[in-house]
Amino acid sequence: MEVALLGGTGDIGEGLALRWAQDTDYTVIVGSRDPEKADAAVETYRDRLSTAGTDADIGAASNEAAARDASVVVLSIPPQFVVDTVEAVASELDDGDVVVSPAVQMNRSKSGFSYDPPGNGSVAERIESAVPDGVAVVGAFQNLAAGALSDLDNDLSADVVVTGDDPEAKSLVSSMAEEIQGLRALDGGPLANTALVESITPLLINLAMNNEGLHDLGVRFE
Amino acid sequence: MEVALLGGTGDIGEGLALRWAQDTDYTVIVGSRDPEKADAAVETYRDRLSTAGTDADIGAASNEAAARDASVVVLSIPPQFVVDTVEAVASELDDGDVVVSPAVQMNRSKSGFSYDPPGNGSVAERIESAVPDGVAVVGAFQNLAAGALSDLDNDLSADVVVTGDDPEAKSLVSSMAEEIQGLRALDGGPLANTALVESITPLLINLAMNNEGLHDLGVRFE
Repeated sequence: MEVALLGGTGDIGEGLALRWAQDTDYTVIVGSRDPEKADAAVETYRDRLSTAGTDADIGAASNEAAARDASVVVLSIPPQFVVDTVEAVASELDDGDVVVSPAVQMNRSKSGFSYDPPGNGSVAERIESAVPDGVAVVGAFQNLAAGALSDLDNDLSADVVVTGDDPEAKSLVSSMAEEIQGLRALDGGPLANTALVESITPLLINLAMNNEGLHDLGVRFE
Repeated sequence: MEVALLGGTGDIGEGLALRWAQDTDYTVIVGSRDPEKADAAVETYRDRLSTAGTDADIGAASNEAAARDASVVVLSIPPQFVVDTVEAVASELDDGDVVVSPAVQMNRSKSGFSYDPPGNGSVAERIESAVPDGVAVVGAFQNLAAGALSDLDNDLSADVVVTGDDPEAKSLVSSMAEEIQGLRALDGGPLANTALVESITPLLINLAMNNEGLHDLGVRFE
């Protein structure tokens, strides 16, 4: 399977690219608006994967080319650029493709971080309104700490809540989450429930800021 | 220390009353609008605590009398009645008393449960605007499953995120949480951050509804 990580040159995209390259046989395509940036990132990813003992199937591309080749497209880009990016790659998305939203829109004030969803919905629902018909949108991976994910020496232990309206797409993304060692996928219900998942992310940052010894937090439901 | 659980005859109030009676030397006062209902509840709590081997310091009272005697008042009542209850007991709250808000306002639709805070804030901030000056409001215990808490045979393992603007009150409530075996208190920052904690509760219900084998869920940050 081919997975594209648009904006896969940093943050959560970096971590997902490394983990999928290490833990699965997916072909991982790191996309960027700037293909040279993607090339440079992939070079460092290959080095790190090779140090970790993995001969990785990972390549670089423009966001458009990455979206064209992949059946699952992860939008690992800042929330404010998500809709522009979806529109830029929309003509490359095929019927049956799955778009995954790990993005969270937040505000920072003197109290700490707060959840700041676009309009009344979630980033995921915003994306749903921007993708072509026949493309399924799934919310997932919002609550993973980028640092914990991209450090391949770190054993993960975290839950991934998966939301969406297309059962097959949801089940595919759940299995993609669980193929990463240490992650458990949970069904969060329809895409309309995604705000509840996105809003955990600012809480994780606040908890790390306010509690000594806690950092790179994830969440477990038990 | 005297702790009042207004609306302590059911749900989260029942669980907190039982756990504090079992795990601490607090005097626990179960309050109700109807003192006879509080009496009846306390009788069953005493039986259950006695079965569990505890000679409990637990009594019943009207909400007003409970609030009068206690230095910490937990509002374990449905969110729609919280402000009315605070107003009814306001004259019994003394300077330095601490009011604790475990309530969460939710909606149910065909998608599942969603977070439905009053106005732009949280239930806790709504309470803050209703208590007399000199009384501190702390958000805590929103994400504990009532069933898990009130079953004394059940070993707890959950986090309690504590929010508030008064450091002493927050620290007191944190230690009250940690005196219950299996709970860990985390500092969530100022009261303005409480919405992020309250909104986890509908997610916990959705996860239990959508995932076989999961029920009475709590949350852990790690």
